[in-house]
Amino acid sequence: MRSVSIVAAAQLPVQKTSSQDLRTMGTAVIRQVMDQANVDRVDALYTSNMLADELEGQKHLAALLADEAGLAGIEAFEARATMASGAAALRLAFLAVASGDVDLAIVVGVEKMSSGPATPALLKALDARRELPDGKTLISQNAQLMQAYFDLYHLPADALAHFSVNAHQNAQYNPNALFQDRLYTTADVLDSRLISPPIRLLDCAPICDGAAAVILAPTEEARRYSDQSVRLLASAAATDRFRIADRSQPLALTAARLASQKAYRQAGLKPADIHLFEVHDAFSIMACLQVEAAGFAETGEGWRPAAEGEIGPRGRLPLATMGGLKARGHPIGATALYQVGEIVRQLNNQAGPTQVPGAKTGLMMSIGGAGTTIMAHILGK
Amino acid sequence: MRSVSIVAAAQLPVQKTSSQDLRTMGTAVIRQVMDQANVDRVDALYTSNMLADELEGQKHLAALLADEAGLAGIEAFEARATMASGAAALRLAFLAVASGDVDLAIVVGVEKMSSGPATPALLKALDARRELPDGKTLISQNAQLMQAYFDLYHLPADALAHFSVNAHQNAQYNPNALFQDRLYTTADVLDSRLISPPIRLLDCAPICDGAAAVILAPTEEARRYSDQSVRLLASAAATDRFRIADRSQPLALTAARLASQKAYRQAGLKPADIHLFEVHDAFSIMACLQVEAAGFAETGEGWRPAAEGEIGPRGRLPLATMGGLKARGHPIGATALYQVGEIVRQLNNQAGPTQVPGAKTGLMMSIGGAGTTIMAHILGK
Repeated sequence: MRSVSIVAAAQLPVQKTSSQDLRTMGTAVIRQVMDQANVDRVDALYTSNMLADELEGQKHLAALLADEAGLAGIEAFEARATMASGAAALRLAFLAVASGDVDLAIVVGVEKMSSGPATPALLKALDARRELPDGKTLISQNAQLMQAYFDLYHLPADALAHFSVNAHQNAQYNPNALFQDRLYTTADVLDSRLISPPIRLLDCAPICDGAAAVILAPTEEARRYSDQSVRLLASAAATDRFRIADRSQPLALTAARLASQKAYRQAGLKPADIHLFEVHDAFSIMACLQVEAAGFAETGEGWRPAAEGEIGPRGRLPLATMGGLKARGHPIGATALYQVGEIVRQLNNQAGPTQVPGAKTGLMMSIGGAGTTIMAHILGK
Repeated sequence: MRSVSIVAAAQLPVQKTSSQDLRTMGTAVIRQVMDQANVDRVDALYTSNMLADELEGQKHLAALLADEAGLAGIEAFEARATMASGAAALRLAFLAVASGDVDLAIVVGVEKMSSGPATPALLKALDARRELPDGKTLISQNAQLMQAYFDLYHLPADALAHFSVNAHQNAQYNPNALFQDRLYTTADVLDSRLISPPIRLLDCAPICDGAAAVILAPTEEARRYSDQSVRLLASAAATDRFRIADRSQPLALTAARLASQKAYRQAGLKPADIHLFEVHDAFSIMACLQVEAAGFAETGEGWRPAAEGEIGPRGRLPLATMGGLKARGHPIGATALYQVGEIVRQLNNQAGPTQVPGAKTGLMMSIGGAGTTIMAHILGK
């Protein structure tokens, strides 16, 4: 298997409502990332998006972006796994380059959630037969997990609020973050509007528009394109059952355990070797469960690093260093590509005030549904 | 790059309206293909489907089929390229196994077009901005190409009808074909209902339900699973511009040329080395243009092998040997997996009355939109 590197990463500022349409966002970020790598041609374009079928009446997005970007001719198709689609497209590109079949691949994630009613389309990440008739939503499932976690471990009320506080704290230094000027205390989180008990507004990532892209190349050729390339040391995916009631250990976030274990094995690293963790903090409970599942805390202790001030950029376990899904924003199909770009910045010592000192490795996690599909990628300098 | 083999292939009979729902069809064919390879676990499940977002209100199909099939835990995600989605998923699995990262991968394609109004969802393969407002449909685009072809080359009226006649002739021996008892003459094709001039009903593949799956493994381990494995010698993809008006040579089917040339190069073969061609004959004009683009006939001559009786199982260029999209049926996301399974049968000398004598190599082509995305795969014994 060829070693694979990320040789360029670009992203548009996350916005509540972008003034650009979906295709313009996609082509803009493709041009940016190609300029960065100083290439006018690539071998393949892999895309991720979750909602264009419904919100834009548009399938065939990979070929469309290739056409719009003046790249018609090249290989182009899409990878999907609902909210983990960006990670799926990244993994597809990883496999293509690792195999030796593709030398230079762009991965672009783009989502314009402001185009229409996103919520009904997001619901399609759940099992339409076995979950929706019970009135389940993604939020209600996360609420169920959060309540179960509090019930089991008898935590202080603000145990999880620290994740959101940290994300907003970090986002203020990220010019591409949706929320750069909203700093909160844990009291603010606990006072925010109740959405689905016990989940409050400030436990949730926002609906927004965004596009981000990376270019992958064989490590041995990476220097042709950049002197700031970062190796993609591991790429792994796993699944769990859809219904929480069908999972033997719902709080174990089994797919996250499986995916991160595979990724550690592939990279030859262990949790202690990871310098920052770009967590899929669509809900604060998910951040907590991923900290445990990825091996950074014992069962029932995932909230402690947050509550004990260890998740800031200079802490033992820096999380959501550029705002995370919570405060950078979560433009679904683009999210994982924002995460990649942020880790690349960190590993190149370009993260400004939230720079993790000496960061050489980063783990990122992506979740589709309420823990159903989980992908883990490890980047290393 | 590791050599990759297909070690099992299964399919459900194509039906106008299956009595099974989408997930049952998918899990049934997953079980069949796993039984065939005698495995109770695989490393990854890659799926293809085009219409479940709209017709079933269901995304996240890869994880759903993993869950339903009792495989929760494994890696699972989807690949998409509209009507070429099956080929995209096959290529994803090819890359995964070729890279060395995945040892055993199922590819399953499933489509239940009878679940609801398929036509509006199929339209999303076109450019929603630049084609739909002009009233374009997939049929009207193919009609435009067919008319241009007839106008340019002044062909006999029945020049393309032979493709459909051959497909139905072959389908009568395929127990999984939708149309096993409808034999037509070229006069029948020309007398059939006019759909979009000059396209008639019998120029078009039918709307139907189907599911098919294959298992891929490294060639060096293929014998553990089967004594009838077939090598996947090449996997290639290319794109073209969406709007026919934007293509410099619309009748060249440029993406088919690019994809087949890449595939030949990868396999170290030339057109004359191919023993059968499973063509994407969703429309008869597309069959003709692919014959030219894949190097089996000169420009403007793609209809001749059909008209001159050379496309039957014992002809110079056997096409659609088990009925093709036209008569086996075209359950969109599953179609390419039917094609793979049919080539596997041919290369194992199990195709019955439509067996191509001594077949050792087969080319398959898959098309998304009106030639926008084209993938080519070559199988060899």
